[in-house]
This record gives sequence, C-alpha cells and structure tokens, in this order.
Amino acid sequence: MPVSLIVLAAGQGTRMNSDLPKVLHRLGAAPVLHHALAAGRALEPERVVVVTGHGGAEVAASARAFDDRVAIVEQPERLGTGHAVAQAMPLLEGVAGDAIVLYADTPFVCAETLQAMLAARRSHAVVVLGFEAADPGRYGRLVTTGERLDRIVEWKDATDEERAITLCNSGVICADSALMRDLVAQIGNDNAAGEYYLTDIVELARQAGHSAGVVLCDEAETLGINTRAELARAETAFQRRMRAEALEEGVTLIAPETVFFALDTYIGRDAVVGPNVVFGPGVTIESGAEIRAFCHLEGCHISRGATVGPFARLRPGAELAEDVHVGNFVEIKNAVLDEGVKVGHLTYLGDAHIGEGTNIGAGTVTCNYDGVLKHRTEIGPRAFIGSNTMLVAPVRVGRDAMTASGSVITQDVPAEALAIARARQVTKPGLAARLMDRLRAIKAGRS
Amino acid sequence: MPVSLIVLAAGQGTRMNSDLPKVLHRLGAAPVLHHALAAGRALEPERVVVVTGHGGAEVAASARAFDDRVAIVEQPERLGTGHAVAQAMPLLEGVAGDAIVLYADTPFVCAETLQAMLAARRSHAVVVLGFEAADPGRYGRLVTTGERLDRIVEWKDATDEERAITLCNSGVICADSALMRDLVAQIGNDNAAGEYYLTDIVELARQAGHSAGVVLCDEAETLGINTRAELARAETAFQRRMRAEALEEGVTLIAPETVFFALDTYIGRDAVVGPNVVFGPGVTIESGAEIRAFCHLEGCHISRGATVGPFARLRPGAELAEDVHVGNFVEIKNAVLDEGVKVGHLTYLGDAHIGEGTNIGAGTVTCNYDGVLKHRTEIGPRAFIGSNTMLVAPVRVGRDAMTASGSVITQDVPAEALAIARARQVTKPGLAARLMDRLRAIKAGRS
Amino acid sequence: MPVSLIVLAAGQGTRMNSDLPKVLHRLGAAPVLHHALAAGRALEPERVVVVTGHGGAEVAASARAFDDRVAIVEQPERLGTGHAVAQAMPLLEGVAGDAIVLYADTPFVCAETLQAMLAARRSHAVVVLGFEAADPGRYGRLVTTGERLDRIVEWKDATDEERAITLCNSGVICADSALMRDLVAQIGNDNAAGEYYLTDIVELARQAGHSAGVVLCDEAETLGINTRAELARAETAFQRRMRAEALEEGVTLIAPETVFFALDTYIGRDAVVGPNVVFGPGVTIESGAEIRAFCHLEGCHISRGATVGPFARLRPGAELAEDVHVGNFVEIKNAVLDEGVKVGHLTYLGDAHIGEGTNIGAGTVTCNYDGVLKHRTEIGPRAFIGSNTMLVAPVRVGRDAMTASGSVITQDVPAEALAIARARQVTKPGLAARLMDRLRAIKAGRS
Repeated sequence: MPVSLIVLAAGQGTRMNSDLPKVLHRLGAAPVLHHALAAGRALEPERVVVVTGHGGAEVAASARAFDDRVAIVEQPERLGTGHAVAQAMPLLEGVAGDAIVLYADTPFVCAETLQAMLAARRSHAVVVLGFEAADPGRYGRLVTTGERLDRIVEWKDATDEERAITLCNSGVICADSALMRDLVAQIGNDNAAGEYYLTDIVELARQAGHSAGVVLCDEAETLGINTRAELARAETAFQRRMRAEALEEGVTLIAPETVFFALDTYIGRDAVVGPNVVFGPGVTIESGAEIRAFCHLEGCHISRGATVGPFARLRPGAELAEDVHVGNFVEIKNAVLDEGVKVGHLTYLGDAHIGEGTNIGAGTVTCNYDGVLKHRTEIGPRAFIGSNTMLVAPVRVGRDAMTASGSVITQDVPAEALAIARARQVTKPGLAARLMDRLRAIKAGRS
Repeated sequence: MPVSLIVLAAGQGTRMNSDLPKVLHRLGAAPVLHHALAAGRALEPERVVVVTGHGGAEVAASARAFDDRVAIVEQPERLGTGHAVAQAMPLLEGVAGDAIVLYADTPFVCAETLQAMLAARRSHAVVVLGFEAADPGRYGRLVTTGERLDRIVEWKDATDEERAITLCNSGVICADSALMRDLVAQIGNDNAAGEYYLTDIVELARQAGHSAGVVLCDEAETLGINTRAELARAETAFQRRMRAEALEEGVTLIAPETVFFALDTYIGRDAVVGPNVVFGPGVTIESGAEIRAFCHLEGCHISRGATVGPFARLRPGAELAEDVHVGNFVEIKNAVLDEGVKVGHLTYLGDAHIGEGTNIGAGTVTCNYDGVLKHRTEIGPRAFIGSNTMLVAPVRVGRDAMTASGSVITQDVPAEALAIARARQVTKPGLAARLMDRLRAIKAGRS
Repeated sequence: MPVSLIVLAAGQGTRMNSDLPKVLHRLGAAPVLHHALAAGRALEPERVVVVTGHGGAEVAASARAFDDRVAIVEQPERLGTGHAVAQAMPLLEGVAGDAIVLYADTPFVCAETLQAMLAARRSHAVVVLGFEAADPGRYGRLVTTGERLDRIVEWKDATDEERAITLCNSGVICADSALMRDLVAQIGNDNAAGEYYLTDIVELARQAGHSAGVVLCDEAETLGINTRAELARAETAFQRRMRAEALEEGVTLIAPETVFFALDTYIGRDAVVGPNVVFGPGVTIESGAEIRAFCHLEGCHISRGATVGPFARLRPGAELAEDVHVGNFVEIKNAVLDEGVKVGHLTYLGDAHIGEGTNIGAGTVTCNYDGVLKHRTEIGPRAFIGSNTMLVAPVRVGRDAMTASGSVITQDVPAEALAIARARQVTKPGLAARLMDRLRAIKAGRS
C-alpha cells in the first residue's frame, strides 16, 4: 500500500530569535527538517510534500537537497494546520493509499512509530499519534472511549474534566489520502483564533461514520523545537541516543559524552573513537578503524584498520583505504588514499590520489589552487614524498619515486626517479654570532 | 548620587592549596577578583578601593590591570572584615554618597542586585544583602522585625531560635560613606576570635537611631570560593549562565556545554559557534560569523560573515574583517585581515596586515622574529601568496602581486609583480629505486 | 607477611559485542585489567597469577606488559570461579602468606580496601569483601551472625528471607594461601549450573572449624564491566575521581569535566590544565607547568614553568625541561628540549635533542625518516632555527648557530655559523597580473 507524507514546515519560529527559518537550524549536523524527512523515508513514500511559508525558498531548497523528488507547496498565509494540509492536497491527487502529516520542527518521531500508525489503519480510518505527558500543560487532549478516539480537544476549549486527561496529541495524523482530502475540505475556522485546525478531522471523520484510533509513542519523540534552548536540548537528546546506539552496536567510545554524531554517521563494530570527535554529515567508518581524540570529519570514508588523528581533519571526498594512517595537524579533502598510505604530520592533501604504501613527509602541501582554478595531484604506489614537498598541481609522481625534502615539484616525476628542487647548503662560519651581536646592538640602541 | 566600592581581597585562601592568591585564580578566563570589580563597574563608581593582604603586590597589580584608577590599601594584619574596611576609609575621605563593601572571592553578586541595594538606601541608613539559604549551616543570620533588620548574629553566637532563621548574611553591606566611617571606627574586638566584625555596624547603626534593611538576592549570587572544587563549581555556574544568555540573545551554540566563555565575551545574534570552542579574554564576534569546532580565541574581533576553524587559534590583536576565512591549523596574532582574505591551512600570520581579497597559501609563515626583534609584514589587496611562502619581515608585498610556492621572500614585491625564490627541479631517473635499495641493505645489515 | 594475588581474567565478555577480550578494553587509557593489577601492586605482592581464558595470549601479553614478573595460567574451560582459582594454585606452591582473589573486570577495588582485608585476616581465616547494595538485585548475599560470616548464598539459591539481605558479595576473597588451596580442592559442582563456585570456600572453611569475616567497601568499588555502556560509565567514574583528586592536591583544572586522565597521570601542585586536555599513559607534569586547551599528551615529562599548547601533541619520549614553551600545532616525539627552548608553531620535532635557550622557527621539521631508517637531530644551545627549516637527519647544529628561513639542512652546522640553503629571490614586474589574466581567460573559456 503506497504512503504519502505531508511535512508542515511553514512556521516562523519567532522565539528562535534568528533570521534563519527555524526548521533550517542544525540538529545532528543536519537541518531540523531533515530529521522528519529521514524518518519518513524509511516508509519508502510514494510522494512527499513539504508545505513551506516563512523563508519558503530556503526551506524548499533544503528539502530538495535531502531528496530532489520532494514536492513543495507554499502556504500563502498562516491560517492553521488544517489550512496548511489543505495546500498539500492537490499534490496528492491520484496517489492512492495513506497520507501521514508530520511536522518539520518535531524531529524525533521515529520510523517504527510511523509504521505502527500505518498498521493501526487496518482498524481505524483516522489514526492519531498520542503520548502520555508527564506534564500535560497546554497540549491538546485525546478523548477516548476504550480503544476508540472520540475527539481531540484543544486545551483552551477543554473542560476541567478533559484537562485531567494526560493522553495528549502529538499532531501527527494518518488517514487514507482521499478521505483526508475530503475531511480537510470540511474544516471550519469558527473558533477564537479564526484558524483551521487539522485536529478537527477526527470529529469530522466520526460524524461521517468512520472510526478513529490512537497510537502511542514515548513523549520524547514528540519534542518540538521553539527556542534555541529547546534546540540545544534536542541536540543533547539526539546525541545521547546516537551514543547509546553506537555503544550497543559494539563501537568503542572512550568518552561518549564528547563525541558528536551527525544524523547519518555510520560506525562499524569495534571501531574506536577517542574523546572530542566531531562528525559532520556523510561519515562512514568501518569496523576496527580508530579515530583518535580531537578529530573533525565530514563526508569521508575510513576503512578497516585505518587510524586517524589526533588533531586530524577529513573533509568531503576524503577516502581512506585499509591501514591508512593520517596523523596530527593533517587535512585531507577530496582525496583518495590507497591502502597503507601514511600521512603523519602537518600536511594538506586536496584533490589528490595517493597510491598504496606511499609515505607523505611532514609539511607536504598539494598546491591545488592557482588563484583561479583547482588542479589534481596524482602520486603512485610506494612513493616517498620528502618533508615539506610542495606539489604544484597538476602534477604526477610515479610509483616508487621520491622527492627530496623541501622541493617544489612543478614537473611530473617518473616512476623510480628522484626529484629535487632545492639550493645547495652554504655554511658561513661565525656569521650567526656576528648577526646576533648586531641585532642585539640595534635593540639596545632602540631602548 | 556618587557611589564608592570597597573590595576586600586580603584573604589567604589556604584551602586552595596554592601559591597563587585565591582571588587571582581564574574564573571565566579572568581573575576571580575581576568579577566583583566588573559588577561594581556597572554602578560607575566615583572611587574603588581594593584592600589587599596576602599576595598584596600581585593582587594590586591585577586590580590595576582591570582599571588603573583603582586605589589600593594594604591591610597589614588579618584582624577581621571590620578592620579591613577601616583601612579603606581614609581613601574615601571627601567622597560623598554611598559606599558598598564587596568581596573579591564572591564573584557572582550582580550589578542589578547592587542597584537594588542603592535603591533601598532611600528607606534605610544601612542596607545588608541577604539570601534565603537552602542549607543555612554556619552562615550568619539576619534577625529582622518586619522589613527592618535588627542585627546580624554570627552562627557561633546564635541561640537555637536564631539558628532556625534561614535568612542569611552575604556580607555585602551598603551605607552612606561618612556614616560607614563613623560606625566602623566604633567596632570592637571583644569576642572569641578577637576580630573586628563588619557585621557589627548594623547594631551600632541602630543604637545610633538609624534604620537598617535587607535586600534579598538569589543564594547563587553569594557563592564564595574557598577550595579548588568550589572554584570548579563556580566556573560551571558561570559557564552555564553565559551559555544560557548567549542562546537567549540568538546565538547558535551547537553544543553549549562544550563552549567556554570569558567574562567579557561578546557574540552577536545568529553567529554560529560549534562544539569545543574556548574563548579567552577580549573576544567580540559579530552577527552571522561562524566559529567552527575546536577553536581557541583570545583578544580578537571577528566580523560579520567571517568563518573560523575548525582548529584555528586567534591570538590578541587578530582582527578579521567581513567574509574573512581562517581555516585549520592556522594561527593569527596581532594581524589585521581585510575583507575577504582567505587563510585556509597550516599558516602562521603574526604582526601583519593583509589587504582585502588576498589569498594566503597553505604553509605560509610570516617570519616576524629574527631572534631579537619583531618585524611587520604588509601584504596588499588581491595578492596571491603561494603555498609555503616564507615572508621574512620586515617585508611588503604589493597589491595584485604573487609569490611562487616555496619561496622565501626577503625583498619587497611590487604591485602586480611575481616573486620567485626557488631552485629549478632536477629529476634523476632511477635514483629513488637505487637509494631505497641501498637503505634497505643498510637496514638488513644492522639487523 | 607475604601476599599473593590471583587475578581472574578468563571471561569472554560476550555482552561487550567485541572481538577484543573484555579486560583489554581501555579505562583511563589503560587496559581494564591493569586497574586491578595496579591496586594489587600497592601491596607489593610476592607473586601475581593471572588466570586467562578467552583471548588468552592477548590478555597474557597485556598482563606481562604491566609487569613482566606476572605468572600466567590458562583456564582451559570455563567451569566457574572455583575452577579458575584452582588453576592458579600450583603457581602459589611454596609461597607463604595470604592470597587474594581479584577480578580483572572489576577495576575499582582500591589498595586501601585490600589492606583492610589483610588486616582482617588477623581475626578470620577467610575474609570476604562485601558491600551494602543500593539495589541488591541478583548479587550473592552475605549471611552473617554478628561480625561472623556464615556463608555466601547465590541469589538463585536464596530464600526470600535471604534475598532481603542487602549485604552483598563482591567476589573478592582473601585467605591463607595454603588454606585456600585446600578449600578450593574441596569445591564441588553439584549445582544447577554444574560450576565450581569460589564462594563455597566460606562454608567449607567454617565446616573445617575456621572463622570467616567480612570487610566492607563502598559499592562503587565493586563496579563490574559487562557492556560497553558499563565501560563508559566506569570511565566516567574513573575520570570523576581523578579530577577530584587533582583538585584536592592543588592542581588547577579550569574545566575539570573536560580533562581526561590516564591511570598513571601525575600532575604537581599549582600546575594549570586548560579545557579539553587528554592524557595518555605515562605523563608527569611538575608544579607550576601549564597545559593549555586542546592538548594531547602521552609518555612525556613536563618541567616546572613549561607551557604547552593550545593544540600541542606530545608523544612518548618528549621531555620538556624548565621554562620550555611548546606552542600550537606542534608535535614532539622522542625528543629532549632543554631549559628555555621555544617551539612556537607548526613544527614536528622527532628523535632530537635541542639545547637550552634555542628557538625553533615556525614550520620546522626534523626529517627523521628516510623511508627505511630513523635518524637523530642534535641542536646545541642558543641556536636559532629559521622558520621552515628542514633538518635532514642525521644532522647536528652547533651552539649559537643559525639556519636561514626556508633552508634544507643536510650538513652539520658548526657553532656560531649560519647555514643557508635557498635560492635568491627574483622579482618579475607585471608577471602576476599577466598570469592571473591568463588563468581567468582559461576559466572563462571552460565555462
């Protein structure tokens, strides 16, 4: 049975005190919006519609960056959730199956919960996601009779008796797509705020003879983000979950509380991650690799047996094959390092391919930018790049070749050749002593 | 109405187990002493007197470093708070208005609280700062009748009934300066410890027909520092407050609990600060700048749109104009980087000025020190400094000029010129292979 | 009275979800196993026997790395703790005095507790370490009469009344070595699991007319490690204790919660450690040294007055004499830096000796590896190594000598001499402008 998603992402988020639309703030190194989209993706949805409003162009671009098949619809005015969903309906025309309404600022509703809602659709025409609130406060309440959901009552319209209910509304709703279209069209705005509430469809469904039901989730899944402090708490919750999962899956985290995961970080069993490691998006680490303390990784792949850091930065496109070693104060960007390459210290490798077993000396730089264009460096297997070699790209160094320490390599080096580009050492006896005497005299004269 | 401050900073702090005077230990990257001075500064005081004792010269120097108009008086012996205040009195001679007694080891009494004490002086001749203690323990108790403060009773002199009081004495006292002088002169030392207690002035004032009152503050404001563990807790409390304020003001802190603020850190709205960032004193960051993970900043200014790090260190005198980019393993000290300068990797810029739009290649160093003196480097706009350029200061590189990668620049480079200082590359076929064979033979022979 | 230790280290640790034997996972930068060995070492034991099983060869190697006098015995099958101890008994033949049974996965039993057990042996033939459990759960219970221990009952064999006991068994047992041998030989496996339980020796001892007693420790000491989450919690507990001890001893930790200690870290009074510092094994820091933020230290010694970091890495064999300064993005390995050496920025020193007062310029590298062998660099006192000097080892630079910035030093430099190895600067007017025009034209042509 196909399923569609409607993701409401139009809210302004005034309380964030930010020019950036709320749902584009980062959580787990991804826009908040992507979390709901990622949970929804697990359902393999036929169609995904994102309803934008405040900062619409930016939000749309971010949604498309997640998945370019996402459909976007703008909600021209903020007239309530029912109105927002109504905007999405034309884009679901002709798509059979269920539709689920999600919220871009509610990042933690998980795929399993959505699956449970779809399963509950076998028994009910409309399924609402509810939770037992520790402090129900001003949440809408779910009024039930046995397993049946009678209606959702907003806190401000609730009687004292209804306010005593602790079963609350998350806002997430699932229904047959065609039925949802019918019901949404009937929602009125005859209430204090003059808004169209999506929650009304429960009562409308029941009036039309349909049954409604509730699926329960943990309150933590329904956490919404309205302020930066809430965002920070959400980040804490997200990181806690990712750390616990990594430990569970057999990853060694020396100090879990200092490791920051991204939404899509993947780490294999028996990999070791030291204290103070930050993962940006797109990192995969195979079993048995080691990331030492103080590393910053984004968009990279690290194979079995590789060791990285401390103090290493891997940027997008860094690919480390098995048993590669990247040491301290080393930056790798858009570069493939074949098996057993060693890059120990103070090096920048960008736009490069390094052959297996090659050793890169301290202070090496691929000079990949000429002020206008970027160029590539290719180094063959088992080469030895002397310390402080400047590789002025485009340039190739062949297999088993060497460069002498301190050389600026501007021409290709054939296999097995040694390239050297440096001046001969001249030693001037006594000159250091005379120079220092003169400098000290200048300083004395000045003071 | 003018106001004066008397800051008591004579205590030894034996329990710190340190040679450093207690009030010079750091809190928020500033001496503990500076926190009380900073709160007091908000009142724009006419005169500030710091009473020193243990480590007097060091404490005096630190107080003057905060504000060179601070007056210092030494308390020759530790004979109690009343005695300490008495030392300060001659320095307030001729200054009208109120005097407030503060404590250098009590860093969290805030400016608003001091303002409230000044306001309460309209109703009372002597105003004491009190707090409701969660666990009153051995604090002095405030004995009140309605709004009136009758007296302060030390715990060891208190009756059981008095010990049941939870309203406690912070020690902070405010009174008309001349009255305080009179009262302090009357304090006796007829007690078990043989000390002169400042708290006695409340009873003395009342005996002279003056009224005394209490201003309440949160207990957290009265936190004193006596051990390193208490200092560490104070640091935690300080950081928690700074982080919460930053979030409130619209700063994005990805992982607030890993960001360390200094007492004077200023960060604009919608600036982004990644995990693991440490601010030393004197940092200002404009709106919309981004500080990535693992940065260490002191005494620097970062403008709108600039990006810094990860793994960058900005030292005092670093000034980054709009849209500057400072990347990884880069150190900037006493250097102005004009709009749009890019310094991506592994670079040291010290004592320099870099013109707008200039690109600094990886591995560049301003050789600013000749072993005796420091010299400046000046680079014009839109220059291109090749990777691993050594700029031997004093030296100038003109606008739109270039240096070739790996060059040591000892002479000025005119605008639009290219400077090159490197040997021609020589490639010796087969030599790398022969060298490696020879080295392997040596190794085999050794083992 | 001599004492022997039997350390049980045979368990598989299935719940760790790891190929690495459980007791070799790291805690405080040391294998978990080493913690029990370190506590035991304080007793100056006559003999230490480690009983291995799962991953026996690796565990044995790790035990010997801690102390090469450790005896190893393999438990061929996992038949219970009694069986494990029985394997160790032949290795205690001829060693008089007491034997204590410890557990390699229970790292926090402290030396003082073991001393208390030895002291209690004056009153009892068998002494068991017990603790009052907050949540006794499925721990074995200690059934006592007054001060006397009657027996240990496993949870699954306990009556409801026995289950109500909160005094629980840690498993640590002490007895006269010869008596333990006798008792262990009598343990049977007539129980549900068919295992030999060491705990049975209490009842066996009493049946033979011996008395048994209990020594109490804090429950925290008995924390065992069975999952990665428990290991992470143990790390947290370990770090908390080390941090508190350091504060107590007069070390300044700016942000204690971000400093990671190793089992053997030693830091002197009034040393200052900034935020985010990671200590690997073998670090000693003298009083008054300062380690700034973001440092990673292993196997190094830092003397009084030295300053390190931020962003410094000291590797094994780094020895910093008094007043040495090691700055940012600097790596030191197997190198002795004499008094007052300054290494400010972006440098790698490996396999070197640097004389007192020498200044090492930014970007300096000791080229200690030729692709096959490692070589040494020797630099005399008061030398000045220009920025970006490559020191191609083996090489010597004499006292008061200088190297010019950007030089590759391949030959020894005598005292007071200046060595220079670089090309003369050539400046080509207008060439930069023409080159940039050409590059821009290429780019325009491509797009």
